[in-house]
Amino acid sequence: MNNKPLIPVLAVFGVGLIGGSFSAALRRAGQVGKVLGVGRNRATLEQARALGLIDEVVTPAEAAASADMLLLSTPVGAMRKLLADMAPHLRDEAIVTDGGSTKQDVIAAARDGLGERASQFVPGHPIAGSEQSGPQAARADLYEQRKVILTPLPENSEDDIALVRSAWEACGACVSQMSAAQHDLVLASVSHLPHLLAFAYMGQVAGAPDAELRLRTAGGGFRDFSRIAGSSPEMWRDILLANRDAVLDELQAVQAVQQQIADAMRTDDAESLLALLTRAAEIRKAWDGR
Amino acid sequence: MNNKPLIPVLAVFGVGLIGGSFSAALRRAGQVGKVLGVGRNRATLEQARALGLIDEVVTPAEAAASADMLLLSTPVGAMRKLLADMAPHLRDEAIVTDGGSTKQDVIAAARDGLGERASQFVPGHPIAGSEQSGPQAARADLYEQRKVILTPLPENSEDDIALVRSAWEACGACVSQMSAAQHDLVLASVSHLPHLLAFAYMGQVAGAPDAELRLRTAGGGFRDFSRIAGSSPEMWRDILLANRDAVLDELQAVQAVQQQIADAMRTDDAESLLALLTRAAEIRKAWDGR
Repeated sequence: MNNKPLIPVLAVFGVGLIGGSFSAALRRAGQVGKVLGVGRNRATLEQARALGLIDEVVTPAEAAASADMLLLSTPVGAMRKLLADMAPHLRDEAIVTDGGSTKQDVIAAARDGLGERASQFVPGHPIAGSEQSGPQAARADLYEQRKVILTPLPENSEDDIALVRSAWEACGACVSQMSAAQHDLVLASVSHLPHLLAFAYMGQVAGAPDAELRLRTAGGGFRDFSRIAGSSPEMWRDILLANRDAVLDELQAVQAVQQQIADAMRTDDAESLLALLTRAAEIRKAWDGR
Repeated sequence: MNNKPLIPVLAVFGVGLIGGSFSAALRRAGQVGKVLGVGRNRATLEQARALGLIDEVVTPAEAAASADMLLLSTPVGAMRKLLADMAPHLRDEAIVTDGGSTKQDVIAAARDGLGERASQFVPGHPIAGSEQSGPQAARADLYEQRKVILTPLPENSEDDIALVRSAWEACGACVSQMSAAQHDLVLASVSHLPHLLAFAYMGQVAGAPDAELRLRTAGGGFRDFSRIAGSSPEMWRDILLANRDAVLDELQAVQAVQQQIADAMRTDDAESLLALLTRAAEIRKAWDGR
């Protein structure tokens, strides 16, 4: 362990699951000095302080003036204003990063809000969401073996990208890089669409006249399949709207396969049905969470 | 613990996850004397014997002639022939039950195969499937706190129903009863359709040109949502065909909600989108696995 931590002063905007766990993980690794917390809700900030996730509550301007790294872990919709508030005060050496689930819209907001200082913004996305939220959900081990994707801007310095990467690696995460456009397409498929499908499924069950009996009868398959339908509706409204085109394209493609399965069932075509299920099962069984 | 076990001689047809775990759980509870194993695959039967799940390998006729309880835990498609094979040899006191995921088709097979002895058949369904299978997947604790649904026939005796219930309770399960028709409708919603949706989703991901990158990027939400797509394709082909009408009705209803979400996204109707997601999230968060 170094004597000097990687990040002498960290500022976390939004002290919930993502931001609180980033702070807790860096503290556990001995890679952060002081942690400043920024947020709209006083009670949440006090709770984060009581839990030891942050040391001080500050304003966006104060955070910008003193932090070495600033993590935006608020809902994406709140980031534009925070970036504009911090821009005039941001130190030249400071690095801003984020934990947003979509990247192209966050980058647009950063260019708007930070202007020339957008070069100090290294966009990131820890794939470690949960249906839990708030400071009490934060855990020092949340990012262990989890994936973090950075989608750097052309104007980012290599040093800044490397420091953000090191911070996430200190949290135990596996970091990779891709373009923001590619990120949004891939995440539409592996994260946003499964959420849409799980929400739609649970919504239909909720609306059934015998919903009570259904829920009473549901078992382990239901539990895992529908878990993500318990996620924050506000957050997922924003993500689905921010990445609308890609998600709608994926939905259409998946509905086409749903229809192939339905057609095979309707025509009693056991062979085609087996082929469709087998392709899915083989790729799922081969998946190792890599 | 009684000196006399609940089931002096148990016969298990199909010594995989469901049958092997039933035997293991009853053994652990001290509620079974001898366990006979029936199956098509010699190697699987030997493996089950080596694992201590069964004591002897016998034919269907031998099992029928000596067992007090017979559990059919083969694929549903294989049950009709097994029932016909055992029928002429079945003891008057023997109770036959099963672990099939659909009930109306199994009952039809039992009436065909057992004829007048159908009164000795108490249909059941342990909701404890898994993407695992085979004797090595069997566990004495598989049924702990899991749900088992019995769908008795009008001609079943109360004593026989009670004994099957006691056996599952000895395995740690929570047992309830409903009609076979109701079972098949409810399971179409809470089990069969989630499997169809997960298979369709994984099939679409598998077919994407960038499937590799998608799988490499996928995280925890994907993991849980798609887990059941790794289930046995043969078993699920049979279930989807056996319960076709109910599953297709549910699929249509869920696709309608998918379309409502897509329409709200397409028209940028944040309010309707939030309402749709909120209804789903609230009912999922309130679900406690009851």
